Amino acid sequence: MAGLFQSLRDKLDRSVVVESVEMCDIRFPTSLEAHGSDAMHSDPDYSAAYVIVTGGEWTGHGFSFTLGRGTQVVVEGIKALAPLVKGVPLLDIFCNFSTFWRKLTSESQLRWLGPETGAIHLSVAAVINALWDLWGKVEDKPVWKLLSDMSPEEIISLVDFRYLSNVITKEEAVSMLQSKIAGRAEQEKQLQSSGFPAYTTSAAWLGYSEEQLKTLCNAALKDGFRSFKIKVGQDLSDDVRRCKIVRDVIGWNCDLMMDANQRWEVDEAVHNMQQLAEFKPVWIEEPTSPDDVLGNAQITEQLKPLAIGVASGESANNRVMFKQFLQAGAMDFCQIDATRVGGVNENIAIILMAAKHGVPVCPHAGGVGLCEMVQHLAMFNHICVASSNKQIIEYVTHLHEHMVDPVTVTNGNYQLPSKPGYSSEIKKESRDMYRYPDGTFWKKFNN
Amino acid sequence: MAGLFQSLRDKLDRSVVVESVEMCDIRFPTSLEAHGSDAMHSDPDYSAAYVIVTGGEWTGHGFSFTLGRGTQVVVEGIKALAPLVKGVPLLDIFCNFSTFWRKLTSESQLRWLGPETGAIHLSVAAVINALWDLWGKVEDKPVWKLLSDMSPEEIISLVDFRYLSNVITKEEAVSMLQSKIAGRAEQEKQLQSSGFPAYTTSAAWLGYSEEQLKTLCNAALKDGFRSFKIKVGQDLSDDVRRCKIVRDVIGWNCDLMMDANQRWEVDEAVHNMQQLAEFKPVWIEEPTSPDDVLGNAQITEQLKPLAIGVASGESANNRVMFKQFLQAGAMDFCQIDATRVGGVNENIAIILMAAKHGVPVCPHAGGVGLCEMVQHLAMFNHICVASSNKQIIEYVTHLHEHMVDPVTVTNGNYQLPSKPGYSSEIKKESRDMYRYPDGTFWKKFNN
Repeated sequence: MAGLFQSLRDKLDRSVVVESVEMCDIRFPTSLEAHGSDAMHSDPDYSAAYVIVTGGEWTGHGFSFTLGRGTQVVVEGIKALAPLVKGVPLLDIFCNFSTFWRKLTSESQLRWLGPETGAIHLSVAAVINALWDLWGKVEDKPVWKLLSDMSPEEIISLVDFRYLSNVITKEEAVSMLQSKIAGRAEQEKQLQSSGFPAYTTSAAWLGYSEEQLKTLCNAALKDGFRSFKIKVGQDLSDDVRRCKIVRDVIGWNCDLMMDANQRWEVDEAVHNMQQLAEFKPVWIEEPTSPDDVLGNAQITEQLKPLAIGVASGESANNRVMFKQFLQAGAMDFCQIDATRVGGVNENIAIILMAAKHGVPVCPHAGGVGLCEMVQHLAMFNHICVASSNKQIIEYVTHLHEHMVDPVTVTNGNYQLPSKPGYSSEIKKESRDMYRYPDGTFWKKFNN
Repeated sequence: MAGLFQSLRDKLDRSVVVESVEMCDIRFPTSLEAHGSDAMHSDPDYSAAYVIVTGGEWTGHGFSFTLGRGTQVVVEGIKALAPLVKGVPLLDIFCNFSTFWRKLTSESQLRWLGPETGAIHLSVAAVINALWDLWGKVEDKPVWKLLSDMSPEEIISLVDFRYLSNVITKEEAVSMLQSKIAGRAEQEKQLQSSGFPAYTTSAAWLGYSEEQLKTLCNAALKDGFRSFKIKVGQDLSDDVRRCKIVRDVIGWNCDLMMDANQRWEVDEAVHNMQQLAEFKPVWIEEPTSPDDVLGNAQITEQLKPLAIGVASGESANNRVMFKQFLQAGAMDFCQIDATRVGGVNENIAIILMAAKHGVPVCPHAGGVGLCEMVQHLAMFNHICVASSNKQIIEYVTHLHEHMVDPVTVTNGNYQLPSKPGYSSEIKKESRDMYRYPDGTFWKKFNN
């Protein structure tokens, strides 16, 4: 098992370099139908700051997810990073990935824009994700499998442990991973046969009518879903009304999650969840500012007696924020996102810290392509790091038709992806149509 | 005193709107001489993502500070914000500034790039700072005076209190400000006569030779400085060597500050400062990740017995991060920055929270134009919110020659600025020369 880097050296020599890094701005007009509307984001156009890297005979696609306006800012960040990637031997990247990752995140002038946060970190994520897609293709494996075939030492070589040593060390991480090696085959077999549980957010966006709510919840039930998320946070009495509708349809044997999308003050979150406790939510997601470790810790503490957990992470900008949420007991559910932090490598650091704290990893997904990418990380976590029956991946129905390797969700479960790469490629015809502002859709729309 | 908004209404009606928002990328080639070099930023080119707003007969200049590469990313963010600013009546902005500020920071698609963090928040800062410069010109006052002539209620109307209510409420802030009204005139008089204390960072950048260190420390002593900051964090034995040189020159009656620019792990910071304690630093600045509230709290606690404080803030991205640093006792010195958070308005929130926690505000400055802008905030704090003999502003000698209204630092003290506006205008000829990539300097340099 320890021979991955050797096998890579057999396939490649240092003359195989990153030849090109191309980027574009792709926007899907989801706001036209109120898909994705929540208490903070009334009209998202699900978008991608998109990257294509080529090297040798391979091409990797990756992106970070955005909400429409502002995608060009992330694309500009990618342009700024491209010179750090072009010309670098693939071997140097993959066999010493944490060093390369730090080269991107700590570039001495660019890091001022973060550090490791906001738009420039989204740009890093897009580039890193594209490189993982390429690596998967070199090895002819889906990324979850590429990761799951690595030795503990190889996995650890992917991660920049800077700022983490007071919570987890490399040695500790290696020994955590070693303790799971014996069980890997069994876990993988189990995923092959049953898949990985999903919950649906598609039934209860804030902008949907009562009829839509009912129809969509019923449809999701028929599709086999047993876990549902509802958006709350705009108006408490309306939240109560909508939760009642959803519970009426899904009954009390299904799980209900709630998502306030950062709308509340700390005390207000506790107060409002006391009012919503009758609907027995598994968790309240992003009750307040995603930067507020201490505020979320207080909410977590105060909601414990009501058996309501706190979930967050989709807007936590880096491993240091996750470290603190875990240290402070400020998240009961760790919602990694495929593109908010610096791609696969930083997510592995977060997965390791969550495992150490016994916190289940329940990835954020949806948008465009987030389900496709993050499933690889959830599967890897389940096989190599930590399994738990509390772990579940978000699922949103939109835009999968634009993906070259779309997720398969059957009977409420994600099925293991089988194609090489990170499932992160958007179809060429979709890119040509929705490229902003010069794709065929936008040209027509803006006329 | 309560009549500022009335006086504004007398001067303007709602037909006076923001007519234009122009932006550009300005880079000074400071890396050529190792100015500004520290343990994380080896070769900064001090830069500005620059904004000019016009409305009625007035023009406001503002910017956010960057380190060279990446400035274009912030400029792209400003372009994305411009449509939210253009056409808005100045009265609507200034008489309801917190609402306008939230409109920029919470735009439903753009906020995904933060939220309220990173490049897009730097873009917000640039725009907001330009609007303050314009407002000062409308009122014919420097910004510190504009602020110091406001009633507590007017000051509070500038601040978005979202996410702060568990630490400070509007009512509490008003009463804090009211308790200081009687003393304002006296504080202002004192500043008029003695100025505001400065410390210099210009003598001890990491890239300087031993000779440069000695020469510059001696020169600063002659200029009247009694507080000096030295960069540390790259190599402990070298830090010891350089601290010895500096103490040899400045003696033991001067204050010495140290700045590690985020280089250390939590435990490493404590260990290294134990080694550097013999040089009796007032504070260690940014010992570890600027996002690590809990880590900084631990360092603060462990350095207390050595009488070494922890300073941070220049990379704290928003008021929620400052809130937590203050709540957790993770900063002994609060280093606001004029452009990292969302401009003047968000800094007022931070100044109020620091006052509530009894933490002195010691602004970060330097770069280009940061001294010029942030002095206004320090003066306002001293006059209206909290005075303390521990408060001191950073001073760096570079690039003031490019400012239309440069700071005056006499005998180690900032003097009160007297010109209308925010002292944030870069000279037209400097902009034409250092605009990137098409200014005369860069065109020549790149040929």
